[in-house]
Amino acid sequence: MIVGRTVEELNLGDAAEHAKTISESDVYQFAGITGDLNPAHINKVYAEKTFFKERIAHGILSTGLISAVIAMSLPGAGTIYLKQEVEFKAPVYIGDTITARVEVIHIDKTKNRVTLKTVCVNQNGVVVIDGQALVSPPKKK
Amino acid sequence: MIVGRTVEELNLGDAAEHAKTISESDVYQFAGITGDLNPAHINKVYAEKTFFKERIAHGILSTGLISAVIAMSLPGAGTIYLKQEVEFKAPVYIGDTITARVEVIHIDKTKNRVTLKTVCVNQNGVVVIDGQALVSPPKKK
Amino acid sequence: MIVGRTVEELNLGDAAEHAKTISESDVYQFAGITGDLNPAHINKVYAEKTFFKERIAHGILSTGLISAVIAMSLPGAGTIYLKQEVEFKAPVYIGDTITARVEVIHIDKTKNRVTLKTVCVNQNGVVVIDGQALVSPPKKK
Amino acid sequence: MIVGRTVEELNLGDAAEHAKTISESDVYQFAGITGDLNPAHINKVYAEKTFFKERIAHGILSTGLISAVIAMSLPGAGTIYLKQEVEFKAPVYIGDTITARVEVIHIDKTKNRVTLKTVCVNQNGVVVIDGQALVSPPKKK
Repeated sequence: MIVGRTVEELNLGDAAEHAKTISESDVYQFAGITGDLNPAHINKVYAEKTFFKERIAHGILSTGLISAVIAMSLPGAGTIYLKQEVEFKAPVYIGDTITARVEVIHIDKTKNRVTLKTVCVNQNGVVVIDGQALVSPPKKK
Repeated sequence: MIVGRTVEELNLGDAAEHAKTISESDVYQFAGITGDLNPAHINKVYAEKTFFKERIAHGILSTGLISAVIAMSLPGAGTIYLKQEVEFKAPVYIGDTITARVEVIHIDKTKNRVTLKTVCVNQNGVVVIDGQALVSPPKKK
Repeated sequence: MIVGRTVEELNLGDAAEHAKTISESDVYQFAGITGDLNPAHINKVYAEKTFFKERIAHGILSTGLISAVIAMSLPGAGTIYLKQEVEFKAPVYIGDTITARVEVIHIDKTKNRVTLKTVCVNQNGVVVIDGQALVSPPKKK
Repeated sequence: MIVGRTVEELNLGDAAEHAKTISESDVYQFAGITGDLNPAHINKVYAEKTFFKERIAHGILSTGLISAVIAMSLPGAGTIYLKQEVEFKAPVYIGDTITARVEVIHIDKTKNRVTLKTVCVNQNGVVVIDGQALVSPPKKK
């Protein structure tokens, strides 16, 4: 059975990433799954008249990349996701390449809780999402 | 042009909902879009050995239903999504019907900011997600 | 009931094709289904630094077009797919139009086995996949 | 830049896996992407009259799980996929949990070529795909 890192195996500063170019297909499928059919995401004509000038991806879609890093890498399989706070700081456009980065900033061995700094950055280094997650790493096998 | 409610048109206690039965297809597509291929979501044999006993949906998928209510209903089109905090309180299983509910709990007319209580509840009334969002409603046309 | 061609109805040199322009959406969905999130397929910034200079489609995606010709046309419905060998000879880029071509090159009536030459060619006539399949055509109705 | 293992870092017997429960959604999307609309995959009424008694997944879909292990784990990012041979030995039903396993069986350091045994096994330990791949691992950074 695949198991991620336990609280004992984690150290402050440990970090992991997951990067993806956000496609139109990602945005459209995400809209379909969630029901967030905001015209800013799926209506080009509408989007051209907005402040952002073109269709943008859902903020929660990029948040999903954070979830991927947590589940796949740090701490990895078996982690219980307890809390996520995100601040949407800049728009993500279709075609942007987003890197989600997770870093251990607090460890509570007694309660088996780890706080992660969770950031998403675009291909130009602009922070599009800033935030924190609280997770419970997998227990010793 | 479709425009949601401005800060002047919103009142404390205003609420809106969006509900969906979470399908296996939703979970699988969400895994593909985000890259969150956690075996707890896509591997039935693995999931049976976990605490939850069966495959569960991604917490961020249900968070997307909250995003849908905000963008589609309250305040609606033109809203800028600034912050979202979520606490994952109970698992969402494939086949669960999740209702995302958003309620106005604070209005700051000067800064054009509205705080929303954001909750997801399953078909049995169990709160699966609790949290808050901060949004900037659309301006007067 | 739809039935393809039996071994008696097939001749050496019989051929069939299926062509498709490979979209970004095809590549992204294929990545999600298989879990092959190789950055060469879904990360434009990464791909630009590789030998291929841009995102390429999964080789197995084009192999699926061969499977389509076999199942849909030659021999068609009711065929049992026994073996497939593929050699990936050139990259498939997002936006390429790939034609999968299948041709009967050996028939074993006693064992009800047919060997097919299976090739995928891009819009410029470049062979991107070369290979062979072994199939068992449907039996007489 | 993420880079997988070079030929010098690989040893005979090195192995990696990727497992997934194959959903109806996977099969339907795969059918749509490839055009392999064989009724054995997407027509329940037809499938009930076949030898297999129910809808089966595309053989090439499970082959894609092999591609995922090669690209994501062994050798990993930067690998060039040269050849794949697969023998379809048993059907994969919707709902089966398939583990793709890749193992290094030959290393040619001079040509930078590695031969992998590639197997897919279902939840009952039945080998559904047997085969081999030839890959060119990433070069030294």
